[in-house]
Amino acid sequence: MKTMKVLLEDHEIPRQWYNIQADLPTPLRPPLHPATGKPVGPEDLAPIFPMNLIEQEVSTERWIDIPEEVLEKYLIWRPTPLCRARNFEKLLDAPVKIYYKMEGNSPAGSHKPNTAIPQAYYNKVAGVKHLSTETGAGQWGSALSMACQMFGLGCRVFMVKVSYEQKPYRRMMMNVWGAECIPSPSNLTQAGRNVLAEHPDSPGSLGIAISEAIEDAIAHPNAKYSLGSVLNHVMLHQTIIGLEAQKQMAKIGVYPDVVMGCAGGGSNFAGISLPYVRDKIHGKDVKIVGAEPTSCPTLTRGPFAYDFGDLAKMTPLLPMYTLGHDYVPAPIHAGGLRYHGMAPIVSHLVKENLVEARAYHQLDTFEAGVMWARSEGFIPAPETDHVIAAVVDEARRAKEEGKEKVILFNWSGHGMVDLASYDAYLTGKLLPYELPDEEIARALRAIEGFPKP
Amino acid sequence: MKTMKVLLEDHEIPRQWYNIQADLPTPLRPPLHPATGKPVGPEDLAPIFPMNLIEQEVSTERWIDIPEEVLEKYLIWRPTPLCRARNFEKLLDAPVKIYYKMEGNSPAGSHKPNTAIPQAYYNKVAGVKHLSTETGAGQWGSALSMACQMFGLGCRVFMVKVSYEQKPYRRMMMNVWGAECIPSPSNLTQAGRNVLAEHPDSPGSLGIAISEAIEDAIAHPNAKYSLGSVLNHVMLHQTIIGLEAQKQMAKIGVYPDVVMGCAGGGSNFAGISLPYVRDKIHGKDVKIVGAEPTSCPTLTRGPFAYDFGDLAKMTPLLPMYTLGHDYVPAPIHAGGLRYHGMAPIVSHLVKENLVEARAYHQLDTFEAGVMWARSEGFIPAPETDHVIAAVVDEARRAKEEGKEKVILFNWSGHGMVDLASYDAYLTGKLLPYELPDEEIARALRAIEGFPKP
Repeated sequence: MKTMKVLLEDHEIPRQWYNIQADLPTPLRPPLHPATGKPVGPEDLAPIFPMNLIEQEVSTERWIDIPEEVLEKYLIWRPTPLCRARNFEKLLDAPVKIYYKMEGNSPAGSHKPNTAIPQAYYNKVAGVKHLSTETGAGQWGSALSMACQMFGLGCRVFMVKVSYEQKPYRRMMMNVWGAECIPSPSNLTQAGRNVLAEHPDSPGSLGIAISEAIEDAIAHPNAKYSLGSVLNHVMLHQTIIGLEAQKQMAKIGVYPDVVMGCAGGGSNFAGISLPYVRDKIHGKDVKIVGAEPTSCPTLTRGPFAYDFGDLAKMTPLLPMYTLGHDYVPAPIHAGGLRYHGMAPIVSHLVKENLVEARAYHQLDTFEAGVMWARSEGFIPAPETDHVIAAVVDEARRAKEEGKEKVILFNWSGHGMVDLASYDAYLTGKLLPYELPDEEIARALRAIEGFPKP
Repeated sequence: MKTMKVLLEDHEIPRQWYNIQADLPTPLRPPLHPATGKPVGPEDLAPIFPMNLIEQEVSTERWIDIPEEVLEKYLIWRPTPLCRARNFEKLLDAPVKIYYKMEGNSPAGSHKPNTAIPQAYYNKVAGVKHLSTETGAGQWGSALSMACQMFGLGCRVFMVKVSYEQKPYRRMMMNVWGAECIPSPSNLTQAGRNVLAEHPDSPGSLGIAISEAIEDAIAHPNAKYSLGSVLNHVMLHQTIIGLEAQKQMAKIGVYPDVVMGCAGGGSNFAGISLPYVRDKIHGKDVKIVGAEPTSCPTLTRGPFAYDFGDLAKMTPLLPMYTLGHDYVPAPIHAGGLRYHGMAPIVSHLVKENLVEARAYHQLDTFEAGVMWARSEGFIPAPETDHVIAAVVDEARRAKEEGKEKVILFNWSGHGMVDLASYDAYLTGKLLPYELPDEEIARALRAIEGFPKP
């Protein structure tokens, strides 16, 4: 009988997160205050984040202790198994061994609780009573709802209205976990009312939802704002994935040739890859690949620039690959990958050639996802289908080169509440889409006049 | 740091299923041929089941080897973790330790693949090319779709039309796994056409769907029929759950005082409890409790009788607790528990006082399920909520008695595609329902004149 999984016992769970900022050959560029063009300081962020998370955001300590209270919640489903995809390997018929971290078996169905739980915890410790956030497709909003419930915090999620209406199950999940889910734009905030006054039928956007969540957090007594990707402390929390994977691969004496993840805001990709980037910085020969959609090709076609994190220009200017803060993503089905920017840490690593990026067509990603479901059983989230398409691609390359390869990737979430997108694919309703060149020109216009990194 | 989970490595997976028929103090009563009143023989079942499964159905061997090919598929997600529900315990504030087997992390989201995979495998070995089955809420249909895909069999699922329309995600899952899902009644079978001729708007029923699936299997070349619960070989395959639990509890030196599962057709309950029934037969002091809905109280209020397994009277007469083969279940949200009968093995054990049964109101079960989700994170299937209500009840009893208890239960499936039922509960749209006494009188009329067990 062949081994399919490598497990870690509860007591083997990593006790610290890994902070890549300690090992970067060149330091991260700072976020800038849009008015002054100067780096933002902790005090600029204090109205919306608690100081303990701001400290993590700027820390250069290599290892940061995971609080006991966070570990207790992680242990409900972590450590996650490292699985060998033997059935998928057979299907590909290529000289590859494929291992994946199963992050789809968390209570919220993805890697998102890895940061939702510590964020809720640190806010609670700081005396915060309530968190406001935004969500697109709903993965993040549901994870934070659960985490807030676990630590006795109130939670309000502004969900992009079109998704709120199309994906009622995500809203219901948030309700089961005791959170309020508001379709955005809403009448609860000035930002929402402004949009509604002009466009009563607005379908909403992530940009509007962010503005609403920030305004709501500032207006609420004892409330803060929470973000599920992009920021340094979010990447930090997600490193638990890669740290576990390293322990697990060490147990079987295997080291990956390629480490892969899908990349939207960057958090699940950073989660599996940052500990391997550390190895690479120290001379290890490992290829690290992020997979993104051709419809939102931030890393593969966007400029590296200072840009806002949101449409309403409420965030600092972040140094990142970007399609412009005014980018309206195509309505592809991998909602988690429809973000105009990319985490500054991930952007920095691509810029420094420590990480590479590839873009995949929506149709190819669903084809890969269905191949996976029909061989390995588990139905991946549409986001996860992107990294599976990258694995298929890498296996094809290995076959062409006649080279044996060990691939490790992050199976970031399941597709149980995204089945309508599979249905659209299987019934031929999805069309190929690639970003036209005009959109890149527009992105460049959007960042015109901003400081250059 | 307190341990939350007990794991088994791949190589520790049980290699044999446990057959309770070897240990029963009194043997099972045989199923009877309705025309002759005589026990049915293997040849009577041969048109719809392959001989290797019929042999398992009647076997009295204590241990039956799990084929290597089945183990390979099991290992995609098995052994499942044994988890300690420390957060839920804290909420209950009772002198109980609660352990649960996490069966919700299978690719289909429940325990159903435990038998779908061996059934597909044995059919393949027997030269069968196609399986037909019926499904109510869709858990079974989706599990069999996946298993057939894994072994290269065609699969057609007749899904009760009202569920087909209300639960499109289940149909979509079956399609992702390459199966055909047909709303029943359909035009594909004579049974379906007969119903449609009389009631063109028929919402369908499990009884009709069974008739269609059996007819379809007989009509199809190289096709057989497959059933996801009730039968002895299904209970057998599910014992992997309880066998793993016993290994896991032995690792931590704990033995349960109470073993619990929800009971619809009986398979997940049998799965966790049969290995403990064996211990009980050999003198161990352990209480074994099945939890069912008050709206479909087969074990708690039905007579023990010979009755048909389906409305259309196509099955043999089975010795079981029953609400009558013509019972139309109330439209409660735990679709998997809406079956008029109960597995003959489970019925026999209740009759012999080796197992007890309790019934819970739908509102109490959702209350328990929401308590669970808000403390432990995972959102249970509405079926699973029944056993969680039973755990709450048992904890209350322990508190009243001032007695410490170790509870083990089967967390049979997740509720990701059942969120509409939680929404109905949280918005006050679910009403309490209890089976009126007239229904029991009707059940007795339905079995009038049948042989007595």
